[in-house]
Amino acid sequence: MDEEKSIDEPVVYDDLVDQHTDELTELLDNHDMKLLRERMNEMQEYDVAEFLSSITDNRMPMLFRMLSKEKAADVFANLEAPDQERIINSITDSELSGIVEELYVDDAVDMMEELPANVVKRVMRTATPETRNLINQYLHYPENSAGSIMTAEFVDLKKYMSVKEAFARIRRIGEDKETIYICFVTSAHRKLEGIVTVKDLLLADPDTVIEDLMDRNVIYAVTTEDQESVSEKFSDYDLMALPVVDKENRLVGIVTVDDIIDVMEQEATEDIQIMAGMTPSDKPYLRTSTTEMWKNRIPWLMFLMLSATFTSMILTSFEDRLAVQAVLIAFIPMLMGTGGNSGAQASTAVIRSLSLGDVEPRDVLKVMWKEWRVALLCGLSLGGVNFVKMLLLDGMLLGNSSITVSVAATVSLSIVFIVMFAKVVGSFLPIAAEKIGVDPAVMANPLISTLTDAVSLLIYIYMAKLILKI
Amino acid sequence: MDEEKSIDEPVVYDDLVDQHTDELTELLDNHDMKLLRERMNEMQEYDVAEFLSSITDNRMPMLFRMLSKEKAADVFANLEAPDQERIINSITDSELSGIVEELYVDDAVDMMEELPANVVKRVMRTATPETRNLINQYLHYPENSAGSIMTAEFVDLKKYMSVKEAFARIRRIGEDKETIYICFVTSAHRKLEGIVTVKDLLLADPDTVIEDLMDRNVIYAVTTEDQESVSEKFSDYDLMALPVVDKENRLVGIVTVDDIIDVMEQEATEDIQIMAGMTPSDKPYLRTSTTEMWKNRIPWLMFLMLSATFTSMILTSFEDRLAVQAVLIAFIPMLMGTGGNSGAQASTAVIRSLSLGDVEPRDVLKVMWKEWRVALLCGLSLGGVNFVKMLLLDGMLLGNSSITVSVAATVSLSIVFIVMFAKVVGSFLPIAAEKIGVDPAVMANPLISTLTDAVSLLIYIYMAKLILKI
Repeated sequence: MDEEKSIDEPVVYDDLVDQHTDELTELLDNHDMKLLRERMNEMQEYDVAEFLSSITDNRMPMLFRMLSKEKAADVFANLEAPDQERIINSITDSELSGIVEELYVDDAVDMMEELPANVVKRVMRTATPETRNLINQYLHYPENSAGSIMTAEFVDLKKYMSVKEAFARIRRIGEDKETIYICFVTSAHRKLEGIVTVKDLLLADPDTVIEDLMDRNVIYAVTTEDQESVSEKFSDYDLMALPVVDKENRLVGIVTVDDIIDVMEQEATEDIQIMAGMTPSDKPYLRTSTTEMWKNRIPWLMFLMLSATFTSMILTSFEDRLAVQAVLIAFIPMLMGTGGNSGAQASTAVIRSLSLGDVEPRDVLKVMWKEWRVALLCGLSLGGVNFVKMLLLDGMLLGNSSITVSVAATVSLSIVFIVMFAKVVGSFLPIAAEKIGVDPAVMANPLISTLTDAVSLLIYIYMAKLILKI
Repeated sequence: MDEEKSIDEPVVYDDLVDQHTDELTELLDNHDMKLLRERMNEMQEYDVAEFLSSITDNRMPMLFRMLSKEKAADVFANLEAPDQERIINSITDSELSGIVEELYVDDAVDMMEELPANVVKRVMRTATPETRNLINQYLHYPENSAGSIMTAEFVDLKKYMSVKEAFARIRRIGEDKETIYICFVTSAHRKLEGIVTVKDLLLADPDTVIEDLMDRNVIYAVTTEDQESVSEKFSDYDLMALPVVDKENRLVGIVTVDDIIDVMEQEATEDIQIMAGMTPSDKPYLRTSTTEMWKNRIPWLMFLMLSATFTSMILTSFEDRLAVQAVLIAFIPMLMGTGGNSGAQASTAVIRSLSLGDVEPRDVLKVMWKEWRVALLCGLSLGGVNFVKMLLLDGMLLGNSSITVSVAATVSLSIVFIVMFAKVVGSFLPIAAEKIGVDPAVMANPLISTLTDAVSLLIYIYMAKLILKI
């Protein structure tokens, strides 16, 4: 693989985007406005947005105004909220209205959720009554629901239409739709009756009636459904677009696969944040303020610090006994670390499998039995290596005469039991959480380490009593 | 939100799949084979695959054979390797050949990579020479490269064709293509010249020439490009399909968005596994053997256990001084835990931001400055609470007379410095790793905890020397 890469030197992706930005920046520096306008209007929206957001002075809104009307809305949707705000604050009401009407309603709603109230007010004032109503309706769906990520621009057909009529309708209304490739067949009361793809239409005879062509077996979501469940449907059924219906089974919007890609990134980020003991936030790192970060991080740190009181109490109450064999103290951090790491591995593996659907709560015994065997193998390998290491390295090489065979055996046997405890509990807790409706990710590293810290210590002290008679 | 949910009772997604499985199972139990065949052939492939994999006895291959030819290949692609193997072992060569020819080449390659060698051999023997060559070619692309996830079934057009001719070609060859909505315009030497969408074609005049319609500004990948970079392109440019070219810029395949969804899941899983100190594996949990799990987990556990030797050495060398104020020992686990958790938060936040592209190596100073401020806030809050807690709870309530104001101050001040060290180092290491081309995820929890363990101890001992004069 490495060899092939060196022959081939594939363009690194980030370099490609940078290249586009560099090209536009050079044109701007040379004041070649004619060519700059031309290039901006033919480039991908994402690249133009990257270029615009790299310009921090007031030339940015001026450059934005050089874009054609349709391009402007597409580029606008690709900008981040602070840049959108800069533009809104420097264009006229009629320009603003033009952009808002061109935006897909899901992009408009995303923007509204991030802009300050006074800017939102101005946007709403310039929008047409229909757009305003639509945005208001969409803003009311619960956060992270299918309703909050869907959009309204879809092609609807009737089942009595012929393929020819369907194509005529697609040609007439398709221009501004988010997708035309999946068309939704609805009744007179807007109830969803089936779907038909442009592929079906293209391969069919022009006189076929939609009713004979449509798939009645539709995968759909309801507006209040969680976005995680929506993204599971996309991944299981390889969908391109999913219809969203309200409580009366009326078609109110569609979710397209490009939005699901964002949802998946967001859900993975959330899981990762929770697993590291942080309150999840989908705000980009550099745009999160210091106090917001503090608020996201302090609750778990505080809780875990206070929970460590138990470990302190255990240590305090065995202080005198441990003092007899002071050498034992030196291995406490290693034992706790090994317990924490073993538990984190098990809990992480199980949490991820639960979220991918590879493991379900009913598998709890299978999982714990597997972890028990893995833990036995890991525990024995670690314990064995540690036994030899303590005698050879700590004892002989570093000349610590307090390290006897019994001491090495105490520490090594403790490792075996600690690893087994950590892995079995680490795999059980996330499943238990899922079962009682708590996010399993909460049961990840930090919580498990605090628990294993205390138990590791107890196991260690018990072993010392047993072997060293402390 | 809760209220809306209770009125609405949206169908829980997993229940929906289960419902389909239950329906088919009932038909099977009642021996209603006619209706079973009918329902299986009209249901979604994913649901049929779920039903088949729920049947563990030898009725499964028999049921599979009740599917129509096209349905059979689609369902087959949705099955996991062990089930595919069961079916292959119980069908004739000509049935097998029929399925292999119907499969998209990317699904065939996925299957080949997981089947045992003797089964692969039989599959290859029954395939036509063209299919065999194609599969062989695809099997040779490096793992996780664009080449390894692309497929060969795309629609290619020539630039001199008219829209009418293009539609005729799509109708003729479109049936078996993975997507017909994005068409790829190639030269006589198969070089990629542009793309045109069915939307463009539908909205254009039938006599327009493709050359005037096609988009020359094509986002593409090269065969050796990493799949992570491919999935970034899908997410940035909202793509449905991406052309893949070889070193000579010849179009050799396409990647479709449904495969990218799998890639994204796989990449997130890998990151999460590495962050928890495991060797990444994309094998589902329950299908991974105990020894495989042991192999994935033991390297980091072993490395981290042995690294803890430094912490032990520090503790051993300060044993005598610590014995003077034995009460100090009780707080070591809490200090190490707090340091580890603080570092894990910072490193996780930075690792995820790097992988989402929110943070880049050049932001290193901005990030460290932000973490420094967050750490100061977190450290002061934790230290303050700990100071009060030690004096009130440990000292007065639990009556531990060794806990003086100086002892509480020693521990609390240590917290402040430990948190600051952990957060700044935790944010720096992943960026440094990215800079030198190492996966930043490696710098997550386990490695940082081992480092912070040792440094926390040194900070603590230094504070004790300073304040308690030990």
